[in-house]
Amino acid sequence: MINIAVLGYGTIGSGVVEVLDTNSESIANRAGDEIQVKYVLDLRDFPGESIQDKIVHDYEVIVNDPDIQVVVEVMGGVEPAYTFVKRALLAGKHVTTSNKALVAKHGAELIAIAKEHSINFLFEASVGGGIPIIRPLNSSLTADEIQEITGILNGTTNYMMSKMTNEGLEFDEVLKDAQEKGYAEKDPTADIKGHDACRKIAILTSLVCGQQVDYEDIYTEGIDKITATDIKYAKAMGRAIKLLASSKRVDESFYAMVAPFMISQDHPLFSVNDVFNGIFVRGNVLGDAMFYGSGAGKLPTASAVVADIVDIVKHLKTNILVEWSKKKLNLVDMKASKRRFFVRMRGTVEENLENLQEIFGKVMTVTLPDVSGEFGFVTDIMSEAEYNEKVKRIEEVIQMIRVE
Amino acid sequence: MINIAVLGYGTIGSGVVEVLDTNSESIANRAGDEIQVKYVLDLRDFPGESIQDKIVHDYEVIVNDPDIQVVVEVMGGVEPAYTFVKRALLAGKHVTTSNKALVAKHGAELIAIAKEHSINFLFEASVGGGIPIIRPLNSSLTADEIQEITGILNGTTNYMMSKMTNEGLEFDEVLKDAQEKGYAEKDPTADIKGHDACRKIAILTSLVCGQQVDYEDIYTEGIDKITATDIKYAKAMGRAIKLLASSKRVDESFYAMVAPFMISQDHPLFSVNDVFNGIFVRGNVLGDAMFYGSGAGKLPTASAVVADIVDIVKHLKTNILVEWSKKKLNLVDMKASKRRFFVRMRGTVEENLENLQEIFGKVMTVTLPDVSGEFGFVTDIMSEAEYNEKVKRIEEVIQMIRVE
Repeated sequence: MINIAVLGYGTIGSGVVEVLDTNSESIANRAGDEIQVKYVLDLRDFPGESIQDKIVHDYEVIVNDPDIQVVVEVMGGVEPAYTFVKRALLAGKHVTTSNKALVAKHGAELIAIAKEHSINFLFEASVGGGIPIIRPLNSSLTADEIQEITGILNGTTNYMMSKMTNEGLEFDEVLKDAQEKGYAEKDPTADIKGHDACRKIAILTSLVCGQQVDYEDIYTEGIDKITATDIKYAKAMGRAIKLLASSKRVDESFYAMVAPFMISQDHPLFSVNDVFNGIFVRGNVLGDAMFYGSGAGKLPTASAVVADIVDIVKHLKTNILVEWSKKKLNLVDMKASKRRFFVRMRGTVEENLENLQEIFGKVMTVTLPDVSGEFGFVTDIMSEAEYNEKVKRIEEVIQMIRVE
Repeated sequence: MINIAVLGYGTIGSGVVEVLDTNSESIANRAGDEIQVKYVLDLRDFPGESIQDKIVHDYEVIVNDPDIQVVVEVMGGVEPAYTFVKRALLAGKHVTTSNKALVAKHGAELIAIAKEHSINFLFEASVGGGIPIIRPLNSSLTADEIQEITGILNGTTNYMMSKMTNEGLEFDEVLKDAQEKGYAEKDPTADIKGHDACRKIAILTSLVCGQQVDYEDIYTEGIDKITATDIKYAKAMGRAIKLLASSKRVDESFYAMVAPFMISQDHPLFSVNDVFNGIFVRGNVLGDAMFYGSGAGKLPTASAVVADIVDIVKHLKTNILVEWSKKKLNLVDMKASKRRFFVRMRGTVEENLENLQEIFGKVMTVTLPDVSGEFGFVTDIMSEAEYNEKVKRIEEVIQMIRVE
């Protein structure tokens, strides 16, 4: 019998308790032992609920109980999660967490403590919800040098972009809808400004390079400036606009960024719609692979947390090696990254084509039958720096979206 | 330093040697030790190649060398692979294999021997080439009851179906093209008749249920009866025809089958084209997930084999638990499985609609502008048994394809 403590009885915490209950038999089979929730830490009481007798308000009860072998941190936020997790590890207790903010900021340190104590700190649910991606990166894609990892890592914004695409709605309308459906929070900043995706790509990049990638170093744009007209242009070009979080290897380092991109129909992430997430990986021997599934939600995320618990129970005496040192990786300036750029500008193709060709070289122009007073064009492949220089020479720019 | 022996220097064997060489440094880092190919078993010599001094013709050299800790079986076919692998395990050597025929037939026994000896028998490359699927099933999707696993598991036939779809060609033409490109073998039976996919879904189903699933019990149809006209109908309905290998849970068992299916655009496998494979998994808490990548080919498959070698080196003293007992699972008769059926018949809609409605109830009919003398219809959802009974009452049936 393995006793565990769940920190936080919110959406994911209650999901973990539910999954352990629903699939108790098969989970015990696979773990090789029965798993029992002994404590649930929460500030609230839950009278009438199955866990009411397990609720504790004081973390000391948990960290000081030698019966507790695994601590499940699903509170979110850096503090007090960080203090609780660190103390649990120092007390010799294994930890699994779904907390991307905690892992992005303190992952390297917590992994090192776990290693020193021959225990485990696992965090499958911190990226991609129920999609297995952390464990595959750590134990399946080990023969490869990963060249690129690009994901649709935020379900809320992907839902919004899908809805704008399918129904021709404006940003504010779909945000309101997403909030009503409970997909977006009252303060949606972390999602729509790309901060959530940024922390997740920081975690994935750290795992890929084995060093610390600070999320503050990652260039991040959200989707809040995308309009219904942008989507019309994308559709006219057979493309979709997606918020991508991407890292690409450049020599011994990576550049990383989060921004809306126009992607074509043959991109493996093109058909990742609604609240689903998808993670594309390119290895130097594997070639292209993609992982797809529910990137958020109570049960899918709990499924990943419980899979970590099972893995911990199978490795009670052994540290599962996770390569992520505290040594900081200096990212390459994304200004050197190269691609095409889609630009909307005021005026007509006729008036501007010659000037655009002089500045950008070859361009492809797009006009929409029901949009007047402006047109769009797509540049040839150039660096961000080069684009930034060139675009200064044209006025009347309405919008720029990167093309991949 | 870990010494390994590679059995067979064909496409995959030479790929394994190449991958170990190309990424030697990162592989050593992740494994925690250097990996060296000490022997390559092959009947041929390879004068001038880097491995020429490592070639041995006699398996006894390998199995009797206590320095060899890992045997990599990439010969294919049941014998002599089975004898060699079993002897290696009995001699206390870990084994990884890419051999689906071996794993489908003797997986349960070899897993049991490895467990008894506290060593490992791994087979990631036997299904889905480079796509991580065996390890995720075994160590990531452990919180779930898997309800369904459906894959495009054969790259050759998927390439052929994609080419028929894109270019309107007939089966024989694309088969010839696939053979010229080296995607299909001179004797393409195993691919086009579905035997290859059948062995792979047998392996996946065994892992999902933890028991032995005999591939001989799985209903298997190939793609050799699919015509350019069938593809035209599929396109007219916004669907694609794919060779699916599928297992679905029914109470405490599964039904499993391999057959061409018409799938709709919102199916996660719809956009898995060309030689790529995709594996769709539905869990009772995870929801839907999909794994996509190169299902075959020298380097992707070698990538999976080498990932197994790394995992073995990380678990030299521990058996990684794989749930797959020798106890046979009796599959549910697929005649009870329910779906829609697409049928082509001679005649006109006008002449036949009344009769069809009497027999099948509600039907949707399809006519193609450039195909005369016949039409297509799609039935309501019914069991295979029910369909088989009803279809006896109509004559002039040209084709039936299942709809999913």
